Amino acid sequence: MTAPSHHAYVPFVSVHNMMRLVLHVGIERVLVDLAAEIAADFLRWPAFDKTPRVASHSDVGVIELMPTSDGQTYGFKYVNGHPSNMKQGLQTVTAFGLLADVATGYPLLLSEMTILTALRTAATSAMAAKWLAPAGATTMALIGNGAQAEFQALAFKAICGVAQVRLYDIDPAATRKCAANLRGYGLGVVSCATAEEALLGAQIITTVTADKQYATILTDNMVGPGVHINGVGGDCPGKTELHRDILLRSAIFVEYPPQTRIEGEIQQLDADHPVTELWQVMAGQAPGRTDARQITLFDSVGFAIEDFSALRYVLGKLRDTGFCEQLDMIADPDDPRDLFGMLLRAA
Amino acid sequence: MTAPSHHAYVPFVSVHNMMRLVLHVGIERVLVDLAAEIAADFLRWPAFDKTPRVASHSDVGVIELMPTSDGQTYGFKYVNGHPSNMKQGLQTVTAFGLLADVATGYPLLLSEMTILTALRTAATSAMAAKWLAPAGATTMALIGNGAQAEFQALAFKAICGVAQVRLYDIDPAATRKCAANLRGYGLGVVSCATAEEALLGAQIITTVTADKQYATILTDNMVGPGVHINGVGGDCPGKTELHRDILLRSAIFVEYPPQTRIEGEIQQLDADHPVTELWQVMAGQAPGRTDARQITLFDSVGFAIEDFSALRYVLGKLRDTGFCEQLDMIADPDDPRDLFGMLLRAA
Repeated sequence: MTAPSHHAYVPFVSVHNMMRLVLHVGIERVLVDLAAEIAADFLRWPAFDKTPRVASHSDVGVIELMPTSDGQTYGFKYVNGHPSNMKQGLQTVTAFGLLADVATGYPLLLSEMTILTALRTAATSAMAAKWLAPAGATTMALIGNGAQAEFQALAFKAICGVAQVRLYDIDPAATRKCAANLRGYGLGVVSCATAEEALLGAQIITTVTADKQYATILTDNMVGPGVHINGVGGDCPGKTELHRDILLRSAIFVEYPPQTRIEGEIQQLDADHPVTELWQVMAGQAPGRTDARQITLFDSVGFAIEDFSALRYVLGKLRDTGFCEQLDMIADPDDPRDLFGMLLRAA
Repeated sequence: MTAPSHHAYVPFVSVHNMMRLVLHVGIERVLVDLAAEIAADFLRWPAFDKTPRVASHSDVGVIELMPTSDGQTYGFKYVNGHPSNMKQGLQTVTAFGLLADVATGYPLLLSEMTILTALRTAATSAMAAKWLAPAGATTMALIGNGAQAEFQALAFKAICGVAQVRLYDIDPAATRKCAANLRGYGLGVVSCATAEEALLGAQIITTVTADKQYATILTDNMVGPGVHINGVGGDCPGKTELHRDILLRSAIFVEYPPQTRIEGEIQQLDADHPVTELWQVMAGQAPGRTDARQITLFDSVGFAIEDFSALRYVLGKLRDTGFCEQLDMIADPDDPRDLFGMLLRAA
């Protein structure tokens, strides 16, 4: 059998190589870089093909495909959400993604995205808070201390200048895990026994819990004026974290309204409830926070462009680091019409 | 760094291993087996989640995602279609696919599908012809002698008893390539200088050309009564092969009408032009061919269930053959909430 041509190979970033890459660059540096990549792509938002993700729901979870394209590069992510996985020792969310060349359709990169999704979600949250949180915010309540919590804490430190996080989880073991992991990063960490305690003095409230059901992590009386809420865990139909009354008091910012109205906190509101697209705030086309007593809510569900930005960042880093393998994934006969002959010659 | 758990690994079938697998089983045997797998899934058609594929079009081609699920297993295929690729020495169509466990969202298999798509398309074509072609058909015209042609010829031999194929391509070099590859399979092969010549005495006409434009590979006067047309190459918006008048004289059978009306030959017809779903013929719920002079047309565009069947077949074969690698694709920390800790411990 002749060796495959270089067209046959797709760079693949395994979990092992993603961890090497992130540790090589530094976690906080990666978060800052990703926020910059995502911001650059949000500023050219109209250039992207956009579609709500393609979801396949079952009783226990969801499997989704999230494609986008800027006309030069195409990207998609495969991601699942299965809250009951944790009981079996499995991840609630796992993901992988791909970039391809629009001109030829050939893949450019295949990458794990379980870790990368946690990083890009945190980077996006902190990017939004830079535009929406009250000036001088230094304390963040972090409600839900699961797989994504530490990434959120470090992104808000590195990107927004948060100096103290106040942790709460319905399971104290999760809070202990989170607090232990955050030691040594120069963040003040306070573990709290109730959500109310976690909110004390917090100008930013991040909710990142995992139940697939209508939950009420925050009730209306818990949220005072002037805070910024970063709602991360309300991200599929039937999965919300905030009481509807909070939404009615808030200025709501979203990624892509057609998707957020299906998946976000605002699935609790009328389909025409006014929301602002975050990219428009960043592009100077819409106001962000307009006064100090306003409650701002970033109703984050995660959008395909964020994954696209993250994958492009990873692809760029491979040039320097070589932290990848080459997968023989594309059949590439010498004569492109001779796929069958390639098969015969493999005998 | 501790070694990843078995949950981290996804079996991956490279192009190399797909070729080993197909040659190990035998090409014709694979085609017969795939037709049986696809038929079994077509008979439980209502059990599947179905959606038209999610396409991202550009001036030069298309990139598509094709998901489906039977409630137990989820599958999707990534596939491109770029007719201009051939000029650069690249494949017009490349593909890969994935199966996942609906209960957990964890991937079960990642596989090349460029070769597998050619196989499943041919198996589906021949399966349809078993139901629709005139009795005793032994001669097939094969118009378009590119990457998929030999797979079509062998599928019709192995599944439908076709004994002679009459080849025509606008490029004689493609016909020479196809005829040479088909030597030694016990098929009569006649190379023809025109499409009209290829049609002489053919009871089955397969069109499998690649141009992304409204083409007319067959005109109305070329098609006599009683033939079965297997239209494979009209498979995306703006890409058709048959003159509209042929369609108006034919009984038309399709995979999934919402997709075929966008992509198939019937994009030339009114949106309510009657068509029959192939699975209904196979399930005894609709008539197939009703008389010997009828023209039947299988307006094939390729549907996600066929890829699902093919991927499951490959996964089943891995148990015996081991023709795969294990990819470290899923981050799987010991404590599923401790994704960040896994990253730290990798240092």
